[in-house]
Amino acid sequence: MRTIAMRLAYDGTDFVGSQWQNTGRSVQGELEGAWFQFTQEQRRFVFAGRTDAGVHAQGQMAHVQTETHHDLATIQRGCNAWLPGDVAVRNVWEVAPNFHARHSAIRREYRYLIADTPVLLPLLRHYVLHVEQPLDDRAIQTALTFLHGRHDFAAFTSQSTSQGSTIRHCYEARCLRVEVLGQTLLAIDVAANAFLQHMVRTIVGTVVLVGRGRLKPERMERVLQERDRRQAGPTAAAHGLSLMTVVYPPHVLPLGAS
Amino acid sequence: MRTIAMRLAYDGTDFVGSQWQNTGRSVQGELEGAWFQFTQEQRRFVFAGRTDAGVHAQGQMAHVQTETHHDLATIQRGCNAWLPGDVAVRNVWEVAPNFHARHSAIRREYRYLIADTPVLLPLLRHYVLHVEQPLDDRAIQTALTFLHGRHDFAAFTSQSTSQGSTIRHCYEARCLRVEVLGQTLLAIDVAANAFLQHMVRTIVGTVVLVGRGRLKPERMERVLQERDRRQAGPTAAAHGLSLMTVVYPPHVLPLGAS
Repeated sequence: MRTIAMRLAYDGTDFVGSQWQNTGRSVQGELEGAWFQFTQEQRRFVFAGRTDAGVHAQGQMAHVQTETHHDLATIQRGCNAWLPGDVAVRNVWEVAPNFHARHSAIRREYRYLIADTPVLLPLLRHYVLHVEQPLDDRAIQTALTFLHGRHDFAAFTSQSTSQGSTIRHCYEARCLRVEVLGQTLLAIDVAANAFLQHMVRTIVGTVVLVGRGRLKPERMERVLQERDRRQAGPTAAAHGLSLMTVVYPPHVLPLGAS
Repeated sequence: MRTIAMRLAYDGTDFVGSQWQNTGRSVQGELEGAWFQFTQEQRRFVFAGRTDAGVHAQGQMAHVQTETHHDLATIQRGCNAWLPGDVAVRNVWEVAPNFHARHSAIRREYRYLIADTPVLLPLLRHYVLHVEQPLDDRAIQTALTFLHGRHDFAAFTSQSTSQGSTIRHCYEARCLRVEVLGQTLLAIDVAANAFLQHMVRTIVGTVVLVGRGRLKPERMERVLQERDRRQAGPTAAAHGLSLMTVVYPPHVLPLGAS
């Protein structure tokens, strides 16, 4: 038995989410279907992070156990040949049997894109949140800086606190201006060891209020301390969010990939 | 009566083209519908360039005659409020009565995007042509350089030569590498006084064969001279193409826009 790890990109627009649901298309469902077409194996894929309906990925990670003898390049080509256009396998690795896409990961990086201009380019409408007023990116950066470090993020999740610890370690939270197709966007990058349900989207919903001047940046610190979801902003729309990268310790994920 | 000029962006994916057709959604139809909702005027819009089904625009131009008294910012907001998400009015100008979006234009600029990598990011699949082999961009540039200047482009159009002159002046034809969402793409930029039907797509279909080594760059010169459509490459897919800019003489289009 071999263990295969994959880096995936997908357009989340037409998915109910990364994981199987009772109804609708999931990324996992499409991947397991393509794997069956390619290998005739019925296999379960494990994903590093659960993404909601409408959330995209440029670097989701998944693993599967297999008896296939194909080389890595053939596995990548075979999966891509059977996958629909909104999912792609970007890289394939052979990893040790104890590799686990979720448990072995030590860091996840998300990016949220916002156009704070009167007009959003139509080509970007499924990938970028549109707010018509310009946002104060310095105030947003000040607010984000309060998130750095180890905190209880209970105020920034929709999940009930009975579902385990809400403590996470935030390695990075910053905003920067990026240009996509000639349009200047605001990118909010958040990296942590792991994320709670809706955590990035609630952080973004809160800092957008800061960027509009409706909340002071220092409010972020109090929201963290009070651990009360009602003190944070709304959950920002899913379609602005992408899972960019999942990081593993270097000995876990070998460099030689297809 | 006032004459209003507009700069438009659209995602061509779900349109039968820029102009009215017997059936299907057109950009013109959506714009005229939004205009009616906003002003209660039934008006015909004139477009600078006719784009095919699937072709996008970041800088299409159009004009309309109107009796509305709204200021330019209100016109822009009003149209955008009624337009569907795949069309947007980027700027609005008031122009002289003899302004004509098509006849007054002196230059059009198109960009065609190609990913010549094994995997195309799913987010880009409606905007970028995917070819799996790497293309030789220096050979492509050599081929494109033959297009500079005034030529008979009869070999690069699907339209019959009975539909008027096939002579056009090409101001620029170049290829460059651009990065979009972290993926390096090949952009082919072509600027001319005006374009024939399928002209950019046929140029791209030809230079892709050059980039694969299937045609020599010098072949471009002979295809131009022989003026025979069968000597050029296939018409490249519509979805890689965008109308980027339409240029007018500076006295025709005032700088003060909304």
